[in-house]
Amino acid sequence: MPLETLSFENNVLTIIDQTRLPGEFIRINLTDLESCAEAIETLRIRGAPAIGVAAAYSVIVGLDEDLSLGHFEHVVNRLRKTRPTAVNLFHALDDMEITFNRYMNETPELLAEELLNTARRIHEEDRATCRQIGKNGARLLEDGMSVLTHCNAGGLATSDYGTALGVIYAAKEAGKTIYVYSNETRPLLQGSRLTAWELDRNGVDVTVLCDNMAAVLMTQGKVDCVIVGADRIAANGDTANKIGTYGLAVLSYHHNIPFYVAAPLSTFDPSLLNGNDIPIEERHPEEINRGFGTLTGPENIKYFNPAFDVTPEKYISAFITEKGIIRSPYSEKIKKWFE
Amino acid sequence: MPLETLSFENNVLTIIDQTRLPGEFIRINLTDLESCAEAIETLRIRGAPAIGVAAAYSVIVGLDEDLSLGHFEHVVNRLRKTRPTAVNLFHALDDMEITFNRYMNETPELLAEELLNTARRIHEEDRATCRQIGKNGARLLEDGMSVLTHCNAGGLATSDYGTALGVIYAAKEAGKTIYVYSNETRPLLQGSRLTAWELDRNGVDVTVLCDNMAAVLMTQGKVDCVIVGADRIAANGDTANKIGTYGLAVLSYHHNIPFYVAAPLSTFDPSLLNGNDIPIEERHPEEINRGFGTLTGPENIKYFNPAFDVTPEKYISAFITEKGIIRSPYSEKIKKWFE
Repeated sequence: MPLETLSFENNVLTIIDQTRLPGEFIRINLTDLESCAEAIETLRIRGAPAIGVAAAYSVIVGLDEDLSLGHFEHVVNRLRKTRPTAVNLFHALDDMEITFNRYMNETPELLAEELLNTARRIHEEDRATCRQIGKNGARLLEDGMSVLTHCNAGGLATSDYGTALGVIYAAKEAGKTIYVYSNETRPLLQGSRLTAWELDRNGVDVTVLCDNMAAVLMTQGKVDCVIVGADRIAANGDTANKIGTYGLAVLSYHHNIPFYVAAPLSTFDPSLLNGNDIPIEERHPEEINRGFGTLTGPENIKYFNPAFDVTPEKYISAFITEKGIIRSPYSEKIKKWFE
Repeated sequence: MPLETLSFENNVLTIIDQTRLPGEFIRINLTDLESCAEAIETLRIRGAPAIGVAAAYSVIVGLDEDLSLGHFEHVVNRLRKTRPTAVNLFHALDDMEITFNRYMNETPELLAEELLNTARRIHEEDRATCRQIGKNGARLLEDGMSVLTHCNAGGLATSDYGTALGVIYAAKEAGKTIYVYSNETRPLLQGSRLTAWELDRNGVDVTVLCDNMAAVLMTQGKVDCVIVGADRIAANGDTANKIGTYGLAVLSYHHNIPFYVAAPLSTFDPSLLNGNDIPIEERHPEEINRGFGTLTGPENIKYFNPAFDVTPEKYISAFITEKGIIRSPYSEKIKKWFE
């Protein structure tokens, strides 16, 4: 069932071009640093865990067999600038840097091999993590439940079957029927273009709605819980995720609907006390007023287009991770994982 | 400044085709019943007050000088089926029916003249009402305030300068600088296509955001109040308006931000005790997944696409009408207006 969102062979990183879905399902080969960086920046590949794996392989593509320290730093610095919010990107690049520093005085062959091993390990860990998150989270879902999700924290956002959607896939594998409502997720419509596409492909009953329709769906009793992914989680549990998540969390809170965040430990950033310090990427106005190829808003006016928002931990009913499910208070429990 | 959203001369109803904005600013002539009905159904003309005025003139276009009772009933019944939620449509058609019944036994010339007089009166009243709503509401706005709005309750939604936006235009005329944030308003993007376009054209500072960004804007202290229009208001104050209004009202409530509804008395429906009985139009999935010519969601899956939602009166800080501003409790005050 996993889609193989990305694969790596012979120094070529192959990804599904997610900007073309759902109209076209095509894979593209990335063979140089700039193509890799552009693919991450333009969201051809996206989703915090997948960005981390892609970044690790992109280091190898970008090195192109030049293993000098100067070139390594150039490659890593270029990749660090692609997207600021998802911490998995930085964790993966940090891991590659640690490996480089450890083996830089060894033979080029060994250094290259160890860099590849590190990237492969990050990739494998993401696969195993998705499965474990799914297994842990599936316990929260009962047969016949309806789950609302936002953006895409599915197979396309990871190396396997996702975090938020992994929970749904695991519940399905356990024989439960789960109904999914997917916010389309403006401006880039990952919810309708990607989440609905992959759920439908995997035989999950899915209904798409515009983001502004979630509140009325809640009043109709059609949402048993909300499950979303995350891009960065601070030490206290404050969570950066796709824009719209915070509003959805407040609406869930107001309607007494459980609001779950499913994410691997690689998405936690214990170096940040709370969400105030999470950098939020602001993207181009054209995503809003030219997103569909048609002009949908005047030119030469202002647009507000943050790619993420931060949901304070008080609105989060539980975190679903590969280490298990934790409920508030979060700080102590998160701290233990990273000790 | 008013845009002349619609005009009527020589049995021809001329409207701005609002489905073409902001790319193209063109007027179209409607010369038969089906064109008028189609224009209302497809939102070439929209906004509760403008729908009412357009419906009244559409009766005259549709009659096409055949003033028989049977034909009149055919015309009115066709127009009644165009859109179910905005009560102004039904009020206008009721008014035309009362006139028809009163003069049907007089000469055809007098009957035709009285029908035209009734339509002109509805049109004139809408103009005067907008001005009075603007004047009344402007008192709520102080110089330098930021107002968030949703959908389009502006000049394009009425015969003059709007209801919610009328308040902003009136504040501007009174010398106050008002900053407007406009939710783009999925799926049909009236907020970015129409509201931003007309505000910008009238020299008002406007910033467009996706609907799911409103919550984070509120946390940033950038919203001093929310002002929206309405499509139907029940006797207790429960208000049907463009989908997304309810969620926005809950978010305003949660962030202690005043939430105002600006609407003429013609939008009230004292025959309904509360919002539960307001019919909500469900529109085509294609508005969500094919809205702008590109496929943005899978075909053959389900879409949830209510055109309106109902905001319970408890979330509404005040109503701004041509009769003045009223605050909770609403029932008694609304009742008095209609006694």
